[in-house]
Amino acid sequence: MTSAPTVAPAAASPAAASPAVTALPFKVRDLSLAEAGRHQIRLAENEMPGLMALRSEFADSQPLAGARIMGSLHMTVQTAVLIETLVDLGAQVRWVSCNIFSTQDEAAAAIVVGRTGTPAAPAGVPVFAWKGETLEEYWWCTNQAFDWSAEAAAAGDTFTGPNMILDDGGDATMLVHKGREFELAGAVPDALPTDTYEYTVVLDLLRRSLASSGDRWTTIAADIRGVTEETTTGVHRLYELAAAGELRFPAINVNDSVTKSKFDNKYGIRHSLPDGLNRATDVLIGGKVVFVVGYGDVGKGSAEALKGQGARVIVSEIDPINALQAAMDGFQVARIESVLDTVDIFVTTTGNQHVITVDHILGMKNLAIVSNVGHFDDEIDIAGLERVAGAEKVEIKPQVHEWRLPNGRSVLVLSEGRLMNLGNATGHPSFVMSNSFTNQVLAQIELFGSPENYPVGVYVLPKILDEKVARLHLDALGVELTVLTPSQAAYIGVPVDGPYKVDHYRY
Amino acid sequence: MTSAPTVAPAAASPAAASPAVTALPFKVRDLSLAEAGRHQIRLAENEMPGLMALRSEFADSQPLAGARIMGSLHMTVQTAVLIETLVDLGAQVRWVSCNIFSTQDEAAAAIVVGRTGTPAAPAGVPVFAWKGETLEEYWWCTNQAFDWSAEAAAAGDTFTGPNMILDDGGDATMLVHKGREFELAGAVPDALPTDTYEYTVVLDLLRRSLASSGDRWTTIAADIRGVTEETTTGVHRLYELAAAGELRFPAINVNDSVTKSKFDNKYGIRHSLPDGLNRATDVLIGGKVVFVVGYGDVGKGSAEALKGQGARVIVSEIDPINALQAAMDGFQVARIESVLDTVDIFVTTTGNQHVITVDHILGMKNLAIVSNVGHFDDEIDIAGLERVAGAEKVEIKPQVHEWRLPNGRSVLVLSEGRLMNLGNATGHPSFVMSNSFTNQVLAQIELFGSPENYPVGVYVLPKILDEKVARLHLDALGVELTVLTPSQAAYIGVPVDGPYKVDHYRY
Amino acid sequence: MTSAPTVAPAAASPAAASPAVTALPFKVRDLSLAEAGRHQIRLAENEMPGLMALRSEFADSQPLAGARIMGSLHMTVQTAVLIETLVDLGAQVRWVSCNIFSTQDEAAAAIVVGRTGTPAAPAGVPVFAWKGETLEEYWWCTNQAFDWSAEAAAAGDTFTGPNMILDDGGDATMLVHKGREFELAGAVPDALPTDTYEYTVVLDLLRRSLASSGDRWTTIAADIRGVTEETTTGVHRLYELAAAGELRFPAINVNDSVTKSKFDNKYGIRHSLPDGLNRATDVLIGGKVVFVVGYGDVGKGSAEALKGQGARVIVSEIDPINALQAAMDGFQVARIESVLDTVDIFVTTTGNQHVITVDHILGMKNLAIVSNVGHFDDEIDIAGLERVAGAEKVEIKPQVHEWRLPNGRSVLVLSEGRLMNLGNATGHPSFVMSNSFTNQVLAQIELFGSPENYPVGVYVLPKILDEKVARLHLDALGVELTVLTPSQAAYIGVPVDGPYKVDHYRY
Amino acid sequence: MTSAPTVAPAAASPAAASPAVTALPFKVRDLSLAEAGRHQIRLAENEMPGLMALRSEFADSQPLAGARIMGSLHMTVQTAVLIETLVDLGAQVRWVSCNIFSTQDEAAAAIVVGRTGTPAAPAGVPVFAWKGETLEEYWWCTNQAFDWSAEAAAAGDTFTGPNMILDDGGDATMLVHKGREFELAGAVPDALPTDTYEYTVVLDLLRRSLASSGDRWTTIAADIRGVTEETTTGVHRLYELAAAGELRFPAINVNDSVTKSKFDNKYGIRHSLPDGLNRATDVLIGGKVVFVVGYGDVGKGSAEALKGQGARVIVSEIDPINALQAAMDGFQVARIESVLDTVDIFVTTTGNQHVITVDHILGMKNLAIVSNVGHFDDEIDIAGLERVAGAEKVEIKPQVHEWRLPNGRSVLVLSEGRLMNLGNATGHPSFVMSNSFTNQVLAQIELFGSPENYPVGVYVLPKILDEKVARLHLDALGVELTVLTPSQAAYIGVPVDGPYKVDHYRY
Repeated sequence: MTSAPTVAPAAASPAAASPAVTALPFKVRDLSLAEAGRHQIRLAENEMPGLMALRSEFADSQPLAGARIMGSLHMTVQTAVLIETLVDLGAQVRWVSCNIFSTQDEAAAAIVVGRTGTPAAPAGVPVFAWKGETLEEYWWCTNQAFDWSAEAAAAGDTFTGPNMILDDGGDATMLVHKGREFELAGAVPDALPTDTYEYTVVLDLLRRSLASSGDRWTTIAADIRGVTEETTTGVHRLYELAAAGELRFPAINVNDSVTKSKFDNKYGIRHSLPDGLNRATDVLIGGKVVFVVGYGDVGKGSAEALKGQGARVIVSEIDPINALQAAMDGFQVARIESVLDTVDIFVTTTGNQHVITVDHILGMKNLAIVSNVGHFDDEIDIAGLERVAGAEKVEIKPQVHEWRLPNGRSVLVLSEGRLMNLGNATGHPSFVMSNSFTNQVLAQIELFGSPENYPVGVYVLPKILDEKVARLHLDALGVELTVLTPSQAAYIGVPVDGPYKVDHYRY
Repeated sequence: MTSAPTVAPAAASPAAASPAVTALPFKVRDLSLAEAGRHQIRLAENEMPGLMALRSEFADSQPLAGARIMGSLHMTVQTAVLIETLVDLGAQVRWVSCNIFSTQDEAAAAIVVGRTGTPAAPAGVPVFAWKGETLEEYWWCTNQAFDWSAEAAAAGDTFTGPNMILDDGGDATMLVHKGREFELAGAVPDALPTDTYEYTVVLDLLRRSLASSGDRWTTIAADIRGVTEETTTGVHRLYELAAAGELRFPAINVNDSVTKSKFDNKYGIRHSLPDGLNRATDVLIGGKVVFVVGYGDVGKGSAEALKGQGARVIVSEIDPINALQAAMDGFQVARIESVLDTVDIFVTTTGNQHVITVDHILGMKNLAIVSNVGHFDDEIDIAGLERVAGAEKVEIKPQVHEWRLPNGRSVLVLSEGRLMNLGNATGHPSFVMSNSFTNQVLAQIELFGSPENYPVGVYVLPKILDEKVARLHLDALGVELTVLTPSQAAYIGVPVDGPYKVDHYRY
Repeated sequence: MTSAPTVAPAAASPAAASPAVTALPFKVRDLSLAEAGRHQIRLAENEMPGLMALRSEFADSQPLAGARIMGSLHMTVQTAVLIETLVDLGAQVRWVSCNIFSTQDEAAAAIVVGRTGTPAAPAGVPVFAWKGETLEEYWWCTNQAFDWSAEAAAAGDTFTGPNMILDDGGDATMLVHKGREFELAGAVPDALPTDTYEYTVVLDLLRRSLASSGDRWTTIAADIRGVTEETTTGVHRLYELAAAGELRFPAINVNDSVTKSKFDNKYGIRHSLPDGLNRATDVLIGGKVVFVVGYGDVGKGSAEALKGQGARVIVSEIDPINALQAAMDGFQVARIESVLDTVDIFVTTTGNQHVITVDHILGMKNLAIVSNVGHFDDEIDIAGLERVAGAEKVEIKPQVHEWRLPNGRSVLVLSEGRLMNLGNATGHPSFVMSNSFTNQVLAQIELFGSPENYPVGVYVLPKILDEKVARLHLDALGVELTVLTPSQAAYIGVPVDGPYKVDHYRY
Repeated sequence: MTSAPTVAPAAASPAAASPAVTALPFKVRDLSLAEAGRHQIRLAENEMPGLMALRSEFADSQPLAGARIMGSLHMTVQTAVLIETLVDLGAQVRWVSCNIFSTQDEAAAAIVVGRTGTPAAPAGVPVFAWKGETLEEYWWCTNQAFDWSAEAAAAGDTFTGPNMILDDGGDATMLVHKGREFELAGAVPDALPTDTYEYTVVLDLLRRSLASSGDRWTTIAADIRGVTEETTTGVHRLYELAAAGELRFPAINVNDSVTKSKFDNKYGIRHSLPDGLNRATDVLIGGKVVFVVGYGDVGKGSAEALKGQGARVIVSEIDPINALQAAMDGFQVARIESVLDTVDIFVTTTGNQHVITVDHILGMKNLAIVSNVGHFDDEIDIAGLERVAGAEKVEIKPQVHEWRLPNGRSVLVLSEGRLMNLGNATGHPSFVMSNSFTNQVLAQIELFGSPENYPVGVYVLPKILDEKVARLHLDALGVELTVLTPSQAAYIGVPVDGPYKVDHYRY
C-alpha cells in the first residue's frame, strides 16, 4: 500500500497485506457518499463549538505545524470535525478507526475527499476505515496509518512514521510498544493457546514487519513525542506500562478531564439512554419501574433521564457513598433480588461483570427490557443465557431480541447485552464529543509543543486547559461567564483567569 | 369488490371502483408481513393492559354480540389490538384507516390473516388500508367498509351496512350524513370551485352510489345505533351537526375523557417529543434553550420532557391562567420576539395557525430547529416560507429539511412543519393508546348495549367509565389502589366504587 | 356596642353582649402594634399584585361606591390588603375573623387605625377580631359586623346592615338566614341535646336579637345583593341552601375559580408543607420516605415539594384516575398498609376522615412524623389515639407532640392532627392569597354592580374574570403574555381578549 | 476554676479570669433547661444513625479509652450527641463552643448534667459555653477546656491538658501553637495596631498564662497525639502551619471527606436555604426569579432546592466548568448585571467577597431579598451599604432588615449578610451533622489509636472510613446495599468491602 498514501480504502486495497481481505465496502469515487458526509460534518460543526473555536484561535500560530499525527479513534462524523481541526492547526494526519463496526462510511469518504478535493483528486486525510472490517483488515488499517513514507517522500524527509499518536483504547500505542519489544528481542513469539484470536493477528502482522525491517517500530517509538488517550481502558493500559517502567513516550490521560468524564458519562448517557430505549422498543417510559444498576456518573445520568420521563427509578449500588447519594437524590436503593419481579426496564451502568445474572433474568416479569450502558459486554450474563436449555432467541428487529425462557416468560434484550446507547441509539451527541475532542486537541498541542514539560509518564491535562475546554463551549449555549475582580481573585487565592480549583475538587 | 369481503387489499383491488387505482402495495399472502405484524401485536398487547382486561372481563357476556362495527382509525399495531378486542367481545368488524399515510402494513396484514388463519384462508377482519393511499383509494376503502352485504349473506340477513361506527376525525360519520342528505335531495351536487379536491372525490363516490341505490345511506343511517369519536376535530364536527339539528344518531365524545385527553396530550407528548428530536437531529438537548409555544396539556408535556433532559425551557402563552401556571412551574414565560435569537429549538403545541411566522424564522439562530407537536400543519408558516425569495429547501434525510435563508442562515424544519411526533418519531406509545382505546371499547358497549340512555346527541363517557379505564391500567404499573371504607365514602358523599369527583373537577 | 362602631375591640368591649367576655387581648392605642402591622401590610402589598392592580384600575370608577361590605374572613396581614383594596374601590367595610385563632392582632390594629389615622383617632375600618376569642366573643364579633347603625347615622340613612357579604366558611351567611328564619317563625328554638355547643351560642345570640327586633335579619336579608364565598365548606352550604330553595340572595363561588382552587391547593401547599415540616421538626427531608395520602391538587403540590427536597415519595389514592396520574408522574402508588413500616413522614391531603387510623399509627416506625394538610381534623384519628390505653402525649414544643405508644415506639404528631400548614407554618403566602382575594374583589364588583346578571343562585366567576385574576399577577413575575392576532383568534374561535377555554377545560 | 471541673459555667464563673466577665446566662441547676435539652438530644439521636451505630460497634472495645479530648465546636444539640458518643467510646471530654453565639443553652445544660446526673450532682461533661459570650469569655472558656488538672487529680496522674483536640475553625489548635511559641520565646508580644481586638484578648490570656507557667502549652503540645478539624477555614490554617514546618502534631482534615463536604454543602443547604427564606420572609418562592451566585456544591444545592419549589433559577459562575454544569442542568447562566432588575431573590454561595456590591443593590427591584449561604460576611458588601448616604436600615424582625435606599426602593437583607441558613433557619439538620460527626469520631479513633500511621502532617480520612460513614447512614433511610461477589471484586480490582474508588474519583 505504499503507492497511494493519500487515497482511501477504495483505492487502498489491503489485499496484498492479508489474503483475507478481498473487497472494500465503499468507493470514495462515490461522490454522493462524500457529499452526504460533508453535509453531516457541517451540521456537526454547529454542535462542536470547542473545536471550531480552536480553529479560530490557532489559525495563525499553527501550533501543530510539524506534527504527524496517527489517529486511532472511531471514524465518525464527529471525528471528522476533530481531524479537520487538527489539520487546520497545522498537523499532518493519518487515521484509522479503533473499532471494526463504528466507522460511518460517509464521514470517512468526506475526510478522504477533503474540503476542496474530489474523489478523483482527493485533498483530504488518508483514512483506513470502513464499517464492518475483519480483524485482519482492522490491523492492516492500523499498520497503514503508521506508514508515513509517502509523506516523507513528498517532504523530502526520511521519517517513516508519525511523531504523535491520538489513541482510543490503546491499540496504536500497544502496536508500537510490541513492535519495538519484538525488534529488540529479534523475534516475534508464536501465539499461545490462551491468546485471543485477535492477538494472533497482531503477532502475524508484526512477524511480517520484522521480516522486512528490524528497526521500524524502534524508530517510530523514538520519534513519537507522546500519545493522548481517550478512554478508561486505554488509560488503564498506559498506567500499567508506566508502572512496569515500559512506557516509551509520555501520555496524556484525556479520559479523566472533568470535561470529558463527567460530560461523556452523565450528560451523554442522559441523552442517549432514553433515545435507545425509544428506538428499540417504543415503550412508554412514563409510569414504568426502572432499575438502574450503579450510581456513578453513568448511573446518575441514567436515573435523571428516566425520572425526567416519569419513570419510577430504583437504584442499586455497592459503594455506600454513591448509595447514600442516590437516596439523598430521592431514589429507592435496593438490591436487584428485592424488586426483581416489579421492574419493567433494567439498565446496567457499572463496568462490572454479571451484575444481571441468568437467575435474575429468570425471575423477571414477562417482556421486561434488559439493557446495558455500562461498558463491558458481560455486565449482563448473555453467555449464561445462551446456555439455558430451552431458551430461544427471536429477533424482533436488529439489536432487539426476545429471549423466550423455559419458564414461559420472555425478556427483551437490547444490543445483545452490549452498549445500547451505541447499538440502539447513535452514541454521544456531537456537543458531548466536542468536549472530549477539544481535550484531545489541547493535549496534542501540549505534548507536541511543550515536550520539556512532560517526561515519560502519564499525565492528566492541566486544570487550566480543562477549564478552557469548558470555556470554549459556553457561548454556544448562551452562557455568560462572570469574571473575578483582581481583589476577589486575591481574596480566594486564585489567578483571575484560573485555574480556580484544587486538584481534588469534585465538581 | 362485493365478492371477497373477507380478504384484504391485496386481493381486494379497488380498480373497478376507481381507474386511478392500479396497484396495491402489499400482499396478504406475504406471510412474513403478517407474521411480523403478529409479533408486534403480541408485544403491544403487553403494553395495552386496558384492552386485555376488557377481553377477560367480557369473555363470557359478549356485550358486542350483534354489533357490526365500521371502524375508521389509523390502522396501526395498536389499532390491531383494539380490533381484536372488539372481536373478542362479540363484534363483527370492518376497518379502514383514517389517514392515507398512517397504516402499518404488517399490522393490517396480520389483522386480515387473523389469529388462526393463513394468507390463503384468512380468518380475521376485512381491512381496507395500506400505507400511501391516493385520495381516491382512501374513499374507495371507506366505502368498502360500509358494504356489509357479504356478512349479511353469510348470516342470512338483509342488512347492508354497519350498526355502529368507531370514528377518528369523523370521515365515516360525514359520509353517512352526506350520503343520506343527497339521497333525500335526489341528487349529488357538483363540486364548487372553492371545494377541496378531496371533497370532489367524495362527491364522485356518492354520485356513483346514488346511481346504484337511492336509499343505501338512508338505510345505513337508520341502522346505526351510534358513533364513538376519537379526536378533537371529529368531536367538533359532531357538536356542529348536533347544534344544527342534523345529527342522525347519538355520539360519544371519547376525546374528552380524562384518560384520553390528559394522557394522550401530556404523557404521550412527553414521550414522543424528545424521541422525535433525537431521531431527527441527534442534537444534545441538555443545555439547549428550547421555546415551547403554548402551555396546555401538550405544552406541559413538552416542557416537562425537555426540562427532564436538561434543556432550559421558555414558554409562551396567550391565556393568562396557563401563563401563570407556567411561571409557577418555574419556566420563563416570554413572547417569541423577545428571545428569538437565543433559542436553539422551537416546539409549537397550540392548534392555532402561524404561531411561528416567516419573520420569526428569519430572526432565528443559524441551524435552529423548528418543530410542531400541536395539530395543524399551519402552526408554522411553511407556506409563507416557501414563498420567500431565495430560500432553499435541502433534504438532510426524510422528514428533516434544512431551509437555507437569504440572510445566510439556515433552520432545520422537522416533518415539513407537520406533527413531528408522528413524522420523526412513532406517535403515541401503546400504553397511551391503550387508555384511548379502552375508552373507545367502553363507549361502543354503552351505545350498543344501552341505546335507551342515549337519545340523539353528543355525550362524554360517564365518569365512572373514565375511572374504569384508569383502573384497568393500574396493575400493569404495579399501582395499588386504596379502597374507601363505607363510612369514608359516606363522609365525602361518594359511592365506594366511584365515581369520585364532580364533573368539573380539573385533575 | 352601638356607641363606637369605628373603633376596634380595644374600645369595643363585648362585655355587655356576653358575660363570658371580660377582656380584650390588644389595645389599638398600642401604637407599636399598629405600626408593626402597617409595616407588614406594606411588605405584603409587594406580594399581592392582583389587589394592587385593582386599586389602580378602579381608582377613578369606584365600582364599590355604595357597597356596604360585611366581611367574615381570617383577619391576617393579607386580609388587611384585601380590606384596604375594597375601601379604595369605594366600599364601606366592617370586618370579623372567621376563626377564633387566626387573627393577627397587629394586622387588625393597623386596619382599625387606618392609613392616616392614629390610635386616638382611628381612620380605618371597624374590625372585631383578635387572636384567641371564645365562641361567645366570636359570635358577638360577627353580630357587631352586621350592625351598621353608626354608618347609617353618619350618612343620614336608615339602613341597619350591610348590602354585601364577603364570607369564608359561611358563618355570616348562615347567621342572616337563621336570623330571618326565626323572625318569620317568631321564636328561636331551644338547643337540642345533639346540637354543638357553638350552635347554642348562636341560638342565644339570635334569641337576644329577636327580643329586641322582630325584623332585623329579615331586613338585612332583603338588603343584601349577594355573598362571595371563599371556601369549599362555605360553598357546600350555599349549594345546599340553593337546592333547598332557601337561599335568599345570589352567591358567587370564589372557591372554584381556577386561580383560586388550583393555586391555593397546589402552589400554596407546595410552599407551606415543607415549611411546616421544617419549623416543626428540623428533620432533613432529603432521603426520607414520605407517604402522601391523596393525589388531588393538594397531594400533587405536596408530592412535588417533597420530591424537590430529595425525599422518596409514595402516594395513595382511591380514585384510579388520580392514581394513574401519580404513577405517570413517577411516584410509587401503594396502600398505606403495604409500606407502613418504611415511612418516615406521613402527610394527609384528602378531606376525608380516618385516612390514618390508630392501627396505622401503631404500625409506624419509631418517631415517624404524622401530619395533615387536607382539611378536616379527623383525617388522622387523633380521637382514637387519645383512647389508646397507655399512650402518652408529650409536648415537644407548641404544635409538636410526641405520642409515646404502648408498643414502646413514639410518633410525632404535628398541630394535633389539624392543618399543619397553618399550625406549624404560616399558611398560604401572600402571593397565593392575592389570587384568591382578587377573585373576591372581582366577585364583589360583579354582584354589587351587575345584580341583574345574577338571580338568586350560586355562580362561579365568569372565565374571563378568572383569566383576569391571572393576568393581574403576571407582571410581578416578569411574565410576558402573547397576544393573539385577530386572525388567530378567529381561527380558534375565541375573542382576542378571552375567554380562551371551554368551561370544562381542565388546566 | 480548678475547683469545679465537672460543673458548667453556672458554677464556673470566669470572673477571676477576666474582669469583663460578670455573669453567666444560664444555671445548670435550672432543671427544666437540662430536661428540654435531653428531650431534644433524644430526638436528634434518631436522626444521627452514624453516631448511634458507632456507640454499638465500639461499646466493648472502647477505642477512645485513655483519650482526653478537648473539643471546640458549636455546642448544639447535635454536638451533644457527638460528645456522648465520644464518652461512650471511652473518652474523657471537656468542651467549648467555637462561636460566641452558636451555643444552644439547653444542650449545654443537658450535657453538663449528664444522662444520669442531676443539676446538683452533675454526671456529664464539663462544658464552657453559653449563647452570647463576650470575646473575653470565649477565650476564657477555651482556656478552661485545656485545664485538665481536676481530671488528673481524680486519676492520680500528672497530666495538665488533653491528648486530643477536636477542632472547628482551628482556635484550639492555634492557642496551643501560639502558647508554645511564646513560651519558647519567653515573652508574649504586645498587640500591634493592625491586630484585631480578638487577638489582643488572646495575647492577654497567654500573657497571664506565661506569668503562671513557662511550659504549660509546650507540655500540652507534646502530649497531644493529634487534632481532627471540621472546617475549610481550620484546614486552611493547618496546611499553612504544615507548609511552614510549624505544625506540632498530626491533623486529620475531616472537612474534605466526601461524606462531609458533599453532604454538608449540597444536601444541607438544599434543606436550609428554603427554610431560611420561609422563616425570614414567608414569600412564595414558586414563580419567583432567583439568582444564585456560584454553582459549587452549595450553589448546586441551592439551585436544586429553589427549582424544587417552582422558582426560575439563574446562576452565575466564574469557573467555566461549573458554568457548563449549570447550563447542562438546565439553568440560565448570566452575569448579575445582565439580569439585575428581574430578580426577586439573590443567594450568594461563593466564599468570595463582594459578589454582591453596593452598585448591584442599588440596581435591584423594590423589596428584592438579599441573602448569603456562602461563608464570609463580606460576600454581600454590607459595609459598603452602611456607607451609602441616605440609606436607612429598618428591622422588620430579628435577622430581617429592610434597607431603604436613596433611590426610593428597598431591599430586604437577611441575617445582616451573614449565613442565613444559620441566622434565619436552624443550620444543618441532624442527619447531615451525623455524617460530619461520624467522620470526626472515626478520625479521633484513627489518630488516637494508630498514631504510628500518622507522622506530623495533614491527612484526609482513608476512603474506606469515608465509605464507612456513608454505610452507617444507610439503614436509617431503608437503603439496601448490594455486595460484590468475590469474582466481581476481582474483575474491577477492588476489595469486596472497599474502598471502591480511586482517590480522585469525583462522585
